[in-house]
Amino acid sequence: MEFTASQIATLAGGTVEGDANVKINTFAKIEEGHPGAISFLANPKYSEYIYTTGSSAVLVRRDFKPEKPVSATLIRVDDPYATLAHLLAQVSRMMNQPRRGVEPQAYVSDGVDLPEGVYVGAFAYISPGARIGKGVQIYPRVYIGDNVVIGDDTVLYPGVTVYNGCHIGKRCIVHAGAVIGADGFGFAPVGERYDKLPQIGIVEIGDDVEIGANTTIDRATMGATRIGNGVKLDNLIQIAHNCSVGANTVMASQSGVAGSTKIGEHCMIGGQVGFVGHISVGRDVQIGAQSGISHNIPDGMRVMGTPASDFGSYARRQAVIKRLPDLARQIDALLKDKQ
Amino acid sequence: MEFTASQIATLAGGTVEGDANVKINTFAKIEEGHPGAISFLANPKYSEYIYTTGSSAVLVRRDFKPEKPVSATLIRVDDPYATLAHLLAQVSRMMNQPRRGVEPQAYVSDGVDLPEGVYVGAFAYISPGARIGKGVQIYPRVYIGDNVVIGDDTVLYPGVTVYNGCHIGKRCIVHAGAVIGADGFGFAPVGERYDKLPQIGIVEIGDDVEIGANTTIDRATMGATRIGNGVKLDNLIQIAHNCSVGANTVMASQSGVAGSTKIGEHCMIGGQVGFVGHISVGRDVQIGAQSGISHNIPDGMRVMGTPASDFGSYARRQAVIKRLPDLARQIDALLKDKQ
Amino acid sequence: MEFTASQIATLAGGTVEGDANVKINTFAKIEEGHPGAISFLANPKYSEYIYTTGSSAVLVRRDFKPEKPVSATLIRVDDPYATLAHLLAQVSRMMNQPRRGVEPQAYVSDGVDLPEGVYVGAFAYISPGARIGKGVQIYPRVYIGDNVVIGDDTVLYPGVTVYNGCHIGKRCIVHAGAVIGADGFGFAPVGERYDKLPQIGIVEIGDDVEIGANTTIDRATMGATRIGNGVKLDNLIQIAHNCSVGANTVMASQSGVAGSTKIGEHCMIGGQVGFVGHISVGRDVQIGAQSGISHNIPDGMRVMGTPASDFGSYARRQAVIKRLPDLARQIDALLKDKQ
Repeated sequence: MEFTASQIATLAGGTVEGDANVKINTFAKIEEGHPGAISFLANPKYSEYIYTTGSSAVLVRRDFKPEKPVSATLIRVDDPYATLAHLLAQVSRMMNQPRRGVEPQAYVSDGVDLPEGVYVGAFAYISPGARIGKGVQIYPRVYIGDNVVIGDDTVLYPGVTVYNGCHIGKRCIVHAGAVIGADGFGFAPVGERYDKLPQIGIVEIGDDVEIGANTTIDRATMGATRIGNGVKLDNLIQIAHNCSVGANTVMASQSGVAGSTKIGEHCMIGGQVGFVGHISVGRDVQIGAQSGISHNIPDGMRVMGTPASDFGSYARRQAVIKRLPDLARQIDALLKDKQ
Repeated sequence: MEFTASQIATLAGGTVEGDANVKINTFAKIEEGHPGAISFLANPKYSEYIYTTGSSAVLVRRDFKPEKPVSATLIRVDDPYATLAHLLAQVSRMMNQPRRGVEPQAYVSDGVDLPEGVYVGAFAYISPGARIGKGVQIYPRVYIGDNVVIGDDTVLYPGVTVYNGCHIGKRCIVHAGAVIGADGFGFAPVGERYDKLPQIGIVEIGDDVEIGANTTIDRATMGATRIGNGVKLDNLIQIAHNCSVGANTVMASQSGVAGSTKIGEHCMIGGQVGFVGHISVGRDVQIGAQSGISHNIPDGMRVMGTPASDFGSYARRQAVIKRLPDLARQIDALLKDKQ
Repeated sequence: MEFTASQIATLAGGTVEGDANVKINTFAKIEEGHPGAISFLANPKYSEYIYTTGSSAVLVRRDFKPEKPVSATLIRVDDPYATLAHLLAQVSRMMNQPRRGVEPQAYVSDGVDLPEGVYVGAFAYISPGARIGKGVQIYPRVYIGDNVVIGDDTVLYPGVTVYNGCHIGKRCIVHAGAVIGADGFGFAPVGERYDKLPQIGIVEIGDDVEIGANTTIDRATMGATRIGNGVKLDNLIQIAHNCSVGANTVMASQSGVAGSTKIGEHCMIGGQVGFVGHISVGRDVQIGAQSGISHNIPDGMRVMGTPASDFGSYARRQAVIKRLPDLARQIDALLKDKQ
């Protein structure tokens, strides 16, 4: 798929400066530009890159005034970043028409009502009592358990499993292989053996949530494991039983949250972070990749490391850790002096 | 689902003290109680919480004597914890009737015998030579490879894949998306390229094992990767080729065990722990979350950290690491003094 | 499956020394040998083990001269390691005949051409526009999206999902549950909420690639996430959008690479390693397990730790970290002296 700068300007309601016929077939950050790519300049602190970028075209604000010659074609728009996002969305819609209709090889239990506009792919399985909202797209090989509720316009990609009784909100996207509502990991020791502690709760997922491929969210022992509105979970994440993740929190791949831990709203959590169970993390918390969170974190903190501490302490400690072999030699020398 | 305290007492063979009509719809730890919840008090060191708990009802021993007034309804039983587990199990059975019968959209190879009482869901695939035990529940979209053996009363949830030749014991539960018997990660370098080292062994899983969602257990190069009786593996765990995990060992989510490592019986392993290959971990070993295990661990040790050391050493080191910036300043001052 | 030493010698074109009828049913490293196992001795530094190995037979070079009596049966061949690999391959072919034919319960969209020699299992779903190479094996429950390209002789095991537009090369093996081409994790903040940044790129996988069970490789925002020829990825790995992994790089289980990071050719990456986004790792780099890579790594370096440093620095630091409680006491003593 390829566009000229002038086609993009037309789509975006912008004006072109430079070669209007230059061909665009990909996107690149302005500092990593290359021929065929379009970039955008929204943050003035990146302005210097516009003079050297290898990109063929750059989206800039209407009032942007270059201080030096620019070789890339400029496309002037009101909001360069929003324009880029819209362009991607338009191309995405052209490429991915929503699927509609029920393929005959789907298994739909008696009594399940399928509103107009839904898609149910071949080999999808919908159990008794499930309630499916308008415009829901259920790809092939999705499993929907008994009494599951799926809100309007949610998309379940191939191979998603939703266990009995779980609720998924509206406009959610659940990627392939995600498992919603498997049993929480609860056992009671009986001598050396363990008896299973039945897990009779559910998972409740809000609206506008995106869940990555092969991510797992366990059902609660009783009550619900809760994922708030607007939460974005990357691939291969583990959310254990009875956890809650607050609205608009974003968590990167391979992080894991142990049982009953509560994470606040609007947190940013890096990849491969681990949380022990039964703690509370406040709102607006930022956590660096690979951190280990073993105690409560107050609102607004930025933490890092295992065990995690605030960014400043972490950085100071790491600086000293780098010097450790030198420090050890100095101590040895001081001790020798003393003798 | 909601019960009154008196209904619970009847189910549990207990007696009620306090408001017999209080409504119970969830479970909470006694120290985290809230209205509508039932808690239990089994360990005397939690006794203080019974006077302040927010729970509506608490299961206590028949001989429990409060020292102060208790506002929660008390339900006196012989064994409060066992009673709770039984209550959950009863509710669970009411909610999850075992599925029975073979849905016509299932694919069952010629010659495979399906004993009475099994469930085989639509879109499940059973390859030639598979042996399926009594009462086995094979949910939709499960794949059973050639000559696989599944023991009596085992449950395979949607999307489980069991590769050729693997054995799963009796009364196991394998959650959605788990993959049993994919090829071990074995390659022989040939210049810069790698040739695949065929993996002709199997996976052998004992009885009463629970395997979490999207967990992967690789087949052995030759011989078997072995999971002992009563092992409980959480979600997203990796067990590599030729490993063995001893009976009644419990491993939390996202831990990974590299090839040929042996883990003893009755170990407790936290989340996101990594084990290098070709080591031995003894029995009754406890390993803290996110630890990195790079050498043999003797029986009964409790270890933590990367590289892992015993709990005491780990704690002493961490205490000093926190002080490092101060220590560095002190050394600098001592060195300055000396000049 | 069991062989005698003389049967193996015949298969391998070798000669037997010792008990030609000893039974072999598994493989073991020479230092971990046990009855019934065959081992190989290729590297002279392992020679000492041949005198004590518990294995029943050992593959050795034709010119190997024992210095002491050896109790194991020796099988003399030109290249012991290659012989072992060939033996495994032969047994593997006997055990795993490639599947051929299209099972009637498969869903193949109109217009999709299936060349001779392919296998398409029941409940596999092939979307419009897909191009399937010769000899491709598509196991049950695989999902192939619109316009996907699968090269000759590639095997897709049960439950693999390949999203729209992705390309997989020739002779690849993709294990059960792997997800190729789910959306990259890209969002634009709008106040406290996040808008999805559509992901319109693809995943491009070269030839001779092996991808482990439940591994996830996200599609690019625009352009392609690229996996080079001969790359081997273990289970439960995450490769984020716009990454590239160079030819013949090997990555162990549960490692994760954040967006836009480039990894060079012929690297060896341990398990549970994390890479931040937007960095470059050179060729021939070796990275220890559980490392955290937060900046560029030049060609040929061997690094370890979080944050990662070269093996030597890492080892020196770890040695001092072990001594930290002692060092702290020494500093305290020095300070006391000074007073």
